[in-house]
Amino acid sequence: MSAQDRAADSTPPGLPPIVAAIRSSRRDLARLLTRIENGQAAAELAALYPYTGKAHIVGVTGAPGTGKSSLVNALARHYRREGQTVGIVAVDPSSPFTGGAILGDRIRMQDLSGDAGVFIRSMATRGSLGGLASTTGDLTRALDAAGYDLVFVETVGAGQSEVDIARTAQTTLVVEAPGLGDDVQAIKAGILEIADILVVNKADRPGIENTVRALRAMLELGHRTERALHHGRLLNVSAAPPDENENAAWQPPIVQTVALDGKGIPELAEKLAAHRAYLRSSGTLAVREQARIEAEIADRLRDALLTRLLSQTDPALLAALVEQVSARTLDPGSAIQQLLKRFGENHTG
Amino acid sequence: MSAQDRAADSTPPGLPPIVAAIRSSRRDLARLLTRIENGQAAAELAALYPYTGKAHIVGVTGAPGTGKSSLVNALARHYRREGQTVGIVAVDPSSPFTGGAILGDRIRMQDLSGDAGVFIRSMATRGSLGGLASTTGDLTRALDAAGYDLVFVETVGAGQSEVDIARTAQTTLVVEAPGLGDDVQAIKAGILEIADILVVNKADRPGIENTVRALRAMLELGHRTERALHHGRLLNVSAAPPDENENAAWQPPIVQTVALDGKGIPELAEKLAAHRAYLRSSGTLAVREQARIEAEIADRLRDALLTRLLSQTDPALLAALVEQVSARTLDPGSAIQQLLKRFGENHTG
Repeated sequence: MSAQDRAADSTPPGLPPIVAAIRSSRRDLARLLTRIENGQAAAELAALYPYTGKAHIVGVTGAPGTGKSSLVNALARHYRREGQTVGIVAVDPSSPFTGGAILGDRIRMQDLSGDAGVFIRSMATRGSLGGLASTTGDLTRALDAAGYDLVFVETVGAGQSEVDIARTAQTTLVVEAPGLGDDVQAIKAGILEIADILVVNKADRPGIENTVRALRAMLELGHRTERALHHGRLLNVSAAPPDENENAAWQPPIVQTVALDGKGIPELAEKLAAHRAYLRSSGTLAVREQARIEAEIADRLRDALLTRLLSQTDPALLAALVEQVSARTLDPGSAIQQLLKRFGENHTG
Repeated sequence: MSAQDRAADSTPPGLPPIVAAIRSSRRDLARLLTRIENGQAAAELAALYPYTGKAHIVGVTGAPGTGKSSLVNALARHYRREGQTVGIVAVDPSSPFTGGAILGDRIRMQDLSGDAGVFIRSMATRGSLGGLASTTGDLTRALDAAGYDLVFVETVGAGQSEVDIARTAQTTLVVEAPGLGDDVQAIKAGILEIADILVVNKADRPGIENTVRALRAMLELGHRTERALHHGRLLNVSAAPPDENENAAWQPPIVQTVALDGKGIPELAEKLAAHRAYLRSSGTLAVREQARIEAEIADRLRDALLTRLLSQTDPALLAALVEQVSARTLDPGSAIQQLLKRFGENHTG
């Protein structure tokens, strides 16, 4: 049974049109996702928001070469056999400027195509405007409201993008693989801080024992706490994370997989279910959700405020200020103060 | 002669105290950089800004395992032998939350320590608040004003961080190395778009011919133009990039190096000088500078506006809105509209 069929069975008559549409038509869902990517779906997102919160949102990250996409595909096949539906958002950094995601999309569609219970969306990262994390979160919500049981958010990167995933996802998988180069170790410590489950993929390769041993050692050294996730918070209005007793808190397990032949995938699915149960029973789910909402509100307020300021500022003034800063007759901080001051006066005048 | 000595020789009597201080004392420079990282140096940054614009700012990026740090160290030794001074800002994503940069700093200091003509600063990336690119840019400016002839900004990552470097730096080196895994290729296309010079480090390793051939093929396929850098622009007030004739425009060269024994380093330094000459003669330097200034002003306005809004908003209201969004009785977009509306009323009332 497809996500659409399943959802249609239980559709109450009062469902908002957009929710009814994305639950019954893949094409309508695809169109909505495009509108979300283009920033044109504010009304739809507001309408579907009450219907979110059911899917298990899983972030998947790791260095290039670890086989993340194959792993997500293997998990998708596993969940389909169990009768669950799967949405996938692949955030593709292959091109910051152009649509590098297209090829990957086609390759993956081939693998899982024809299965109405799987929906895959690739998304290229484009410049810094518009908030990649915010758009990813909105795509995830649409898939959640469309009725998919699990939504995977997959990304590559080292640094900020992982932190943003940790905010979007409920459970974060960090994928490693044996033998990826000598100073890969150097970046693992940071990624480990956001890992709920560590996956060592390509476990049939030489060097697997070393990789697992190194990860275990780093986990034992690590000081991973919920507090780390709170460090990046912006509004700081919601409750502090529950005090985590060393024994009661989740200890990230290490799972070995070979995505290409499915080895270890059922064990990984078990750990995913166990982590979700932990999130709920410990109250961590609600804490993470609030932190994520705070970050989202702050990010979107930033953009909205800048848009408002720019719409009220004479373009000729802006151009003149940029020109002066460029000529070093004005420093950037003073240029900003001038713009802020005028904005304040416009508002009070 | 150290950067301090060199600068002191030509110090005009009317130099602002902060500029005189960072040109004559490494300790004062180090303290300023710390204040910049903590966001406490607005006045100093304004005062030193007119004294920037002399250094050649070089961004260095590439995947883990390519030997970026060794390459930058080798370049630093080369320039020191030529009598030039070198500043290095190493943006270390090893830990998004904690100060993972410390170790790397120590290791590098060992290599180049005792040379007053080299100044190294490592910077951990901490959460998303505060703008990594903005802080990096300010650190670079301080080193520029302190009189260093070249300033290297080194980072690891795939995606957004490279784009941000492309904005901060005048010349961007993208570092590759042979045999780093099978799907590393997939991320190269995007990184190539920001490369002014491609470096294949560890050129004594097997597989070097394949790596160079693959890069050359990708370069020939590529559609790299100045327009790509303009895609991420935010204010769009400065001039369009000069029309680039296919033949006149800079074609990114591929330079093979072995950083550990210095092979290829003089050739790389030549290409760096050639690129700077190109930037100046073509007018591209001014265009990039304006694009960078626009992006910086937009980023800092965003943060300043959010800070202003939050300072004028009742924390209890914020907490209540987050609570309602969390309970899904309110969608994030409507919460944001409420906050914006009140902010507008405060300003007009």
